This record gives sequence, structure tokens and C-alpha cells, in this order.
Amino acid sequence: MTATVHPLPGQNRPDPSLDPLVALVAADMNLVNRVILDRMKSEVPLIPELAGHLIAGGGKRMRPMLTLASAALLGYQGTRHHKLAATVEFIHTATLLHDDVVDGSGMRRGRRTANVIWGNPATVLVGDFLFSRSFELMVEDGSLRVLRILSNASAVISEGEVAQLTAQRRIETDEQRYLHIIDAKTAALFAAACRIAAVVAERDEADELALDAYGRNLGIAFQLVDDAIDYASDQAVMGKDAGDDFRDGKVTLPVILAYARGDESDRRFWKDAMEGHRTSDADLDHARKLLERTGAVQDTVARARHYGRRAVDALGRFPDGRAKAALVEAVAFAVARAY
Amino acid sequence: MTATVHPLPGQNRPDPSLDPLVALVAADMNLVNRVILDRMKSEVPLIPELAGHLIAGGGKRMRPMLTLASAALLGYQGTRHHKLAATVEFIHTATLLHDDVVDGSGMRRGRRTANVIWGNPATVLVGDFLFSRSFELMVEDGSLRVLRILSNASAVISEGEVAQLTAQRRIETDEQRYLHIIDAKTAALFAAACRIAAVVAERDEADELALDAYGRNLGIAFQLVDDAIDYASDQAVMGKDAGDDFRDGKVTLPVILAYARGDESDRRFWKDAMEGHRTSDADLDHARKLLERTGAVQDTVARARHYGRRAVDALGRFPDGRAKAALVEAVAFAVARAY
Repeated sequence: MTATVHPLPGQNRPDPSLDPLVALVAADMNLVNRVILDRMKSEVPLIPELAGHLIAGGGKRMRPMLTLASAALLGYQGTRHHKLAATVEFIHTATLLHDDVVDGSGMRRGRRTANVIWGNPATVLVGDFLFSRSFELMVEDGSLRVLRILSNASAVISEGEVAQLTAQRRIETDEQRYLHIIDAKTAALFAAACRIAAVVAERDEADELALDAYGRNLGIAFQLVDDAIDYASDQAVMGKDAGDDFRDGKVTLPVILAYARGDESDRRFWKDAMEGHRTSDADLDHARKLLERTGAVQDTVARARHYGRRAVDALGRFPDGRAKAALVEAVAFAVARAY
Repeated sequence: MTATVHPLPGQNRPDPSLDPLVALVAADMNLVNRVILDRMKSEVPLIPELAGHLIAGGGKRMRPMLTLASAALLGYQGTRHHKLAATVEFIHTATLLHDDVVDGSGMRRGRRTANVIWGNPATVLVGDFLFSRSFELMVEDGSLRVLRILSNASAVISEGEVAQLTAQRRIETDEQRYLHIIDAKTAALFAAACRIAAVVAERDEADELALDAYGRNLGIAFQLVDDAIDYASDQAVMGKDAGDDFRDGKVTLPVILAYARGDESDRRFWKDAMEGHRTSDADLDHARKLLERTGAVQDTVARARHYGRRAVDALGRFPDGRAKAALVEAVAFAVARAY
């Protein structure tokens, strides 16, 4: 499995990247980063120390970039989106901290996770702090509509996380259920991050819903490709250990497809693996062979392209220009990452 | 150490209880319980199952009762306080779930804790869900002032929890620092629970601040007595294991006082104990002896009475009547619980 680039309609660069998006929002992002650093502060030194490890740790800041770029798409000229983009990043960071505790992860973004360095208790509590702080920031902004969108997204995310935990190690999880889970745990925040820009820019509900649809479909595509990447042979791709999902018994779409398409012995293997009885490197190699034979990773990425196209089409109502081009290329980047 | 009753000014019942408070808010509390049960629901069955274990598990519902009783004190006739009281209970429950994970507790309110039954991952995530849901409920109420008070309380609580974690096993924690920690981790939510009633009843800021002061001082008194109770010889008192704080190396006021008043060998003992080198039953017995000799538990409760009196005095501006009498007796109950 090597990196393959699948250009989306309207994209003919050979190698889509996040650069246009990053460049589009660079000035705004500096201001967002200032809010993040300022509001991470606490008289309790462990809080900025632990939170800073993850926040400064080289994440792409995908979600706040989406808030900023969506605002740019709408020609918004104010400054409210800076605080709200920081809010979105705080919610995401809180989720990551708790995820690392839940999964017992050791590596993220190529660095040791907070739970390994500071332990689970501190990681849980600093996650709670960031989550509370995100609400304080939203309340300072003062829009009940934004509060409704983001508090609802937060509830949906945690519901999705619990649903994922419930599905873990259960090979009978099907594609429908899996899509429902990633829609909640990943896509809801992408959708909200984009949607709040329309509220801030005082656009009508149709614009809100279009940005929601863009973010949601991009989020699904993003997560599907992440799940495909977990079975890539190159560990360096994501900075996390490849095969983590396999060893944790996470029934992601590559596994669901390979299981559905496999013969009886394949299915026995997948069931055993998801239940935690096949965790060796040889088992992972065997899993990769079955995925290749059934075309499961390739078709997971094909599904991602489908959602990517929907994301791009959701932007149809907005004027062409630099912001739209950057948002479209972000989709192309999301689905064409090496896997 | 046996139970001693210290009547507060204006209290001459021999045995203060929560009954007047419970009776005062009974009808409202039924409606709050309905909101709680309704909003705990989820399509993910594990959520109501796990949350219901704790929420239905015989807590006193102290905090939502305070919201309801404060509203009654102000003669509030509406229904907004039902949803907000449920919000307060959700925040508290989320905190308890995360506390149990942080402390690795096995028992609470005489029952096995959620983390023992369902594991840490589910407990962390369902806590997150309740926390998010509490914000959704607040947003539905729609008062930015309430949102500001409760989101700030939430951030302060998690800051207090991290501060407590940082102070754990550190015998040099002093009374000032300890009071600061319990003010954040416990009293902030008591204060907010009372204060929001004044917002809902559209009272002025002086009334808000008076109710905040009542709740805050009651919360401190409540926590101090809890900390004293942890060294009681009767394990059944709280439904949690006596000596938990001792074994977890939590430097609470009884320990701070006994350490400050002890001789060199006492101090060595407390240092060793807090660092986790003295966890046997004999060690706990020895700790109890030192506490008795230095009057540390007794004086912790004396400190609690001081805050209890401040709580009662904060109610001075409000008219006498059934609600005020119930709130005063709640203070008497809080400081006179068996220890």
C-alpha cells in the first residue's frame, strides 16, 4: 500500500496539501494561538504544563483553521471568531486527553502522551479544565446560538465516544453503526467548527447548514482515512503507532469490509483479533494481507472520497475565491494523505 | 471520637437534620428528578445505565436542593430552577465519576463505584457526557448570566481538582493552601448552586452575592466535616471506606493541624504516611491517636462551625420563614454530622 493521490473535481494539483488553508488563516491563527496560550494559564502550574504539551505538540489545528477559513469564505471582518476558534481547539484537546486515557495510548503526534508522562488522574482533570474553559470562552462571546451548537456538539462527541467504547472488540459492528459513531465522535466537531462561522457572520440558516454539511462530510472523510492509515506499513505517517486500532480491537471500516468480504477462516481471524487474541506483529501482517486481498483499505478510502465530494458540493452556494479554493484543497488533502 | 452536636445560633433542636430542607423542596425535587432522568437518556444504553447507578444511588442531592431552597427563599414562582437544579446535579455527578477514576475509589455512598463496575474508560466518557449535557441544559435556559456563573464554577472546580492532585502526598501543604483548594473543588459549586437562584428570581447583585456567600461557606464547612469524618472509627458513616484520605495521602485539615502541632516523631510519621509508606490498619490507628492527642479533628470541626456561622450570617438580609429556617438547619446538619 503506497500513497495514492485521488484528485477531487476541480483539483488538479498532483499533491494536495493544507498549505493554502494554513496560508489563508495564518494571521488569524496567530491571534487564536494567543487566546489559547492566554486562556490555558492557571495558578496551578500543572495545567498549562500538561495542556501545553499537547497543544504545542505539533497538531495541525485543523478544527480552528476550519472556523477561520469558513469565516473568511463568508467575508467576515470581525474578531469574534478568534475566541471561538480557540474554544473549538480546547474542546478537541480535552477530547484527545481523555481519549489517550481511555485507550491507554502511549504515543500521539510522534510524542509521548500526557497520560504516560503525568499519569491518568492529571490527564483526566486537565481535560476537564480545558473543557470548562472552552465553555467560559463561549459564554464570553455571548451568542446563545453558538453556545447551543457547541454544547450540542460536545454532548454528541461524548455520546459517540461511549458508543465507540461499546462497539470495541465487537466484530459484529457494521458499516451503518460505524458511520454513526464517527459522525458523532469526529464529524460533529468539524461540522460545528464550520457552522459557528456562519452564526458569527450573521448569515441565514441555509449558510449555516451548508457549512455544517461541509465540515461533517470532511470530518467523516478525515476519520475514514485515519482508520485506513492505521493499517499502513509506515509507522511514521501519523506519529502514532500503526496497528493501534488493530491491537485495541477497534472495529473500523477496513476491518468491517474485510470481515464482510472474507471467507470463514478470515472471519474467525478477525473475530479473534478484535477480541484481543491476535496482537503479534505477524498477526498484524496477516491482517494487512487480508485487507489487501479484499480491497478493504482501498475501498475505505473510496468511501472517504465519496464524503469528500459531498463536502466540496456543500460549498457550491458560496462564491469562488481563495477561501473556497483552500477549503476544497483541504478536502483533497484529507482523502489523499499517504496510507 | 463520638458524634457531638454543636447547635448554631438560632438552632436549638438537639439533633439538626436535613429533613426541613428536604420537605421544603420535595415537590420541586420531583420535577428536577424528572428532568434528570429524562436528560440522562441516550441511544447509547451504557450512558443511562452507568450514570443512573450513581445518580439513583442514594446521594443527598444537596446541591440541587440548595438551588431550589434558595429560589424558595426569594419567593420565586417560576419553573426555570428545575432545569438549572438538574444542571447542577449533572455537573456534580460528572465530577464524582471523574474523582472516582482519579482516586481509584472502590466505594461511594455504600455502593461499588462505576469505575469498578464498568471500568475507567466508560466512567471518564460518561462523566464527559453528563458535563456536556449540563451545558446543553443551561443553554436551553438561555440566561448568559447563569451560564457565566456555572461555566466559571466548572473551570474553578477542575482547577481545584488539579491543585488537590498536586498537593497530594505533600505534607508541606498548609491550611491556607488547603482552604484555597476546597474553596475551589467543593465550595464553588455550592456557591453557584445558590447564586443562580437569585439570577432566575431577577434579584440584584447584593442578593446574588449573599447567596453565593451562604453556599460557599456551607460548602467549606461541609468539606471540612467530610475530611474529619474520614478519620472517624465508624466506617458506615459516609458509605465510603474510612481512612481513604489517609491511604491516598490526601493532606486534609486534620492532618495539617496534627502535623503542625506534633513533635518531631509525629511529623516524621505524617510525612511517611502521606508519602504512602504507612497504610496499614495499625498506622491508621496511630494516626487517629495523634489526631486525638493534638485535638486536630475536633478543631477541624471547630473551623467548620466558623464557616457555618458565616453561612448563616450571609442569610441575614433575607426574610425569616420556612425557607430560611431550612437553610439554617442545613448548616447545622452539615457541621454536626457524626465524626
